Amino acid sequence: MLDVYAFATPNSVKVTIALEELDLPYTLHRVNVHKGEQKTPKFLALNPNGKVPVLVETEQAFSLTESAAILVFLAEKTGRLLPAQGEARAHVFEQLFFHASGLSPAFGQSGFFQRFAATPEPIALERFATEANRTLHVLNTVLAKNRFVAGDEFTIADIAHFGWLWRRGFPNITLDDTPYVARWYADIESRPAVQHGIARIEALVPQD
Amino acid sequence: MLDVYAFATPNSVKVTIALEELDLPYTLHRVNVHKGEQKTPKFLALNPNGKVPVLVETEQAFSLTESAAILVFLAEKTGRLLPAQGEARAHVFEQLFFHASGLSPAFGQSGFFQRFAATPEPIALERFATEANRTLHVLNTVLAKNRFVAGDEFTIADIAHFGWLWRRGFPNITLDDTPYVARWYADIESRPAVQHGIARIEALVPQD
Repeated sequence: MLDVYAFATPNSVKVTIALEELDLPYTLHRVNVHKGEQKTPKFLALNPNGKVPVLVETEQAFSLTESAAILVFLAEKTGRLLPAQGEARAHVFEQLFFHASGLSPAFGQSGFFQRFAATPEPIALERFATEANRTLHVLNTVLAKNRFVAGDEFTIADIAHFGWLWRRGFPNITLDDTPYVARWYADIESRPAVQHGIARIEALVPQD
Repeated sequence: MLDVYAFATPNSVKVTIALEELDLPYTLHRVNVHKGEQKTPKFLALNPNGKVPVLVETEQAFSLTESAAILVFLAEKTGRLLPAQGEARAHVFEQLFFHASGLSPAFGQSGFFQRFAATPEPIALERFATEANRTLHVLNTVLAKNRFVAGDEFTIADIAHFGWLWRRGFPNITLDDTPYVARWYADIESRPAVQHGIARIEALVPQD
């Protein structure tokens, strides 16, 4: 049995989308990051890094953190969404790490300094807005050549990039100047499993 | 034949260390990032993201960017430094992504705002120094339980974390308060292949 501890965040939605794409049953548990529930002692016992999502495989009493590591685990468990070998496989990992180390932190920090910093800090604002835009254009260059981010097939690397592009409003990013990213985004968003994964994550936000 | 385009950087040294550990022959090419050579049109044709390291497998005319993706590729090519399955394998990916998305950007941004920002920006300085220290303590918690970062065996995840800890002076980090990281660092640094990988990367810096 798979348990997922998550909230409506760019990293959490990657996991529910992957589980829906792979037709794996799972139980979703709300960790309300607006209330700081990811920093409670109980949650820190599950993930000392204090972040969602976390996957728990109850039969093996095994828990796993880091959304992209969860995507790799699920893909290898099922033999899907990750080519078995060669260049195609290597390019999936290349995009997973470009997302994790490049696009994702740039989007996150840019949003933070625009929205949450108590005082505007011009160097930080400029640095992260520039980097968010630059990494988006690198992705656009990739998608000018390929239908999907790692080649001709839909893979877990598309799911990873989709998570933060779904939340591109946070750093005030639009796709107006990156037509290949816009075409790809519409393509991914139209997948029924992606819509189910988003709906399940959005249902975690309390409606009161 | 393997060609590596690199400089004396935290991400480049991961690749030479892995190649030395795996006994794979390679040719090392200097890309002097102090002179901006990673942003020339010729280099951008190799990596549109404008970063070292890049691995080129000349026989297959195949190039690969992102240091951690290169580590995964080399480990799978040789069947070493990455467990084949199960929880042990999943925890290697967990640490690779914790490094790529957490510790590495925190160390890099903290160093930038301490050293290169034209004006001190207190929110950014505090944010990234705190995050660099926090991620280091998360790693210390992991290493309190395990000899290596992903369990009982030396893996590519140790090489990934070592790259930035080798350059911990950039964000002014010490290991004085993280004894388990200090013990692990000394252990990794004592490996002959690690010393060879560092020496080859350091030899890329012009001595004039």
